[in-house]
Amino acid sequence: MASQINSNPTPVIILVKPQLGENIGTAARAMYNGALTQLRLVQPRQGWPNTYAIKPAAGAHMILDNVQVFDSTREAIADLNIVFGTTARIRDMNKYILTPQKLGEKMHELTQAGSRVGVLFGPERTGLDNEDMSLVDGLIHVPLNPEYSSLNLAQAVLLVAYEWFKTQDDTLPEQLKTDESPFATKNELLGFFEHLERELDASGFLRVLDKRPIMVRNIRNMFLRTAFTAQEVRTLRGIVSSLARPYHTRKDDRK
Amino acid sequence: MASQINSNPTPVIILVKPQLGENIGTAARAMYNGALTQLRLVQPRQGWPNTYAIKPAAGAHMILDNVQVFDSTREAIADLNIVFGTTARIRDMNKYILTPQKLGEKMHELTQAGSRVGVLFGPERTGLDNEDMSLVDGLIHVPLNPEYSSLNLAQAVLLVAYEWFKTQDDTLPEQLKTDESPFATKNELLGFFEHLERELDASGFLRVLDKRPIMVRNIRNMFLRTAFTAQEVRTLRGIVSSLARPYHTRKDDRK
Repeated sequence: MASQINSNPTPVIILVKPQLGENIGTAARAMYNGALTQLRLVQPRQGWPNTYAIKPAAGAHMILDNVQVFDSTREAIADLNIVFGTTARIRDMNKYILTPQKLGEKMHELTQAGSRVGVLFGPERTGLDNEDMSLVDGLIHVPLNPEYSSLNLAQAVLLVAYEWFKTQDDTLPEQLKTDESPFATKNELLGFFEHLERELDASGFLRVLDKRPIMVRNIRNMFLRTAFTAQEVRTLRGIVSSLARPYHTRKDDRK
Repeated sequence: MASQINSNPTPVIILVKPQLGENIGTAARAMYNGALTQLRLVQPRQGWPNTYAIKPAAGAHMILDNVQVFDSTREAIADLNIVFGTTARIRDMNKYILTPQKLGEKMHELTQAGSRVGVLFGPERTGLDNEDMSLVDGLIHVPLNPEYSSLNLAQAVLLVAYEWFKTQDDTLPEQLKTDESPFATKNELLGFFEHLERELDASGFLRVLDKRPIMVRNIRNMFLRTAFTAQEVRTLRGIVSSLARPYHTRKDDRK
């Protein structure tokens, strides 16, 4: 158990009585998209190994190479601690129903604590039978258009793998990619505002003095809604300088 | 604009230069899984309509019937307010990068506020070109296994549609399905505890008196980790009664 706690095993995907080798291959690809690598099969209809699985699994062949095959669901889950099952329809069973997102979070918590987690997927057409459903700790239900909720096996595996990977990834949910240039400081931004307002005063845009404060505030707010980089602020100042040149030229002419 | 605010239009999926009709069909299915119905095509390589799209779109044909075709990305997004683009690699552009989950939330906020939102998907092999990328308000990046992050077009559309539907759905993220039977009251649960402990006293399980309090606490905690229904508590009491019968019988024998 100690070694399991340290190694934090990733969840195991278990396909119960998959009908077609091709679907085992596409499921393996979808697993690997989400960095899941342990695949178990229970009574694959076409036997195992299955050459039809190879091409659709292109790039994820190491998953096929390490497939474990079992005669029953009981044997396939024997060494696991917590097992979830997927279902299209929610049966008359008192089970926890989880969305894939909640499943991802649960799998993360459980594996962090050293538990071995498995997710069962039933045969393509029929889904898990009642016997297999009775073995699971919770059921996964994907919230989808009630008029059109059917997913193929690889799509269902993809959603589980995707939600798993989300919990493993430290990418910010929303970020600005700024490469070399950091965000502008407020000093740089205010320098731009003053520059702009100076030129708008010069050009006559802000000539109605009792409206000037609200106009300035609105213009500043408009630019404050975006977090500009320092380079972008320099670009904005260049634009203002460039656009304002005629006024300076005119002034120069007047001299 | 007022009618848009009231009708809350759903996001538009825009496939730029899709190569194969089959992929348009599978993308339409994935859209419909997430209750997205508006599909636009920019310069589909095989022209439009395309018979190869029909079979893979089985069940989502109304999306194909209402496809709008455009000569350029600019024209396809002209009437939209906010447009996001999908990309496998994050380019050298200062753009907001969103995960599909964050995109779902943003699309929900924007459409609630009456904005028309679009999501651009590039050609299958190459993705969006730099010209199209320059038109978008934000880029979508799917967090996936960095060693294997390729998705096909329908899978990418599915993740966007799935995250959209999540924001439209009021399903609880985790719930216990209890059908007719509500959760047990604490009174029912405590009744079970007292019943169980009485029988465990009778059977001798709790005979070491200085250990009894901690043993009782541990047993109660074990049962408290699960929220039982009233029916389940009745079942548990039935089990206890049934198991405890020999002790009562023995007592009767002694009389």
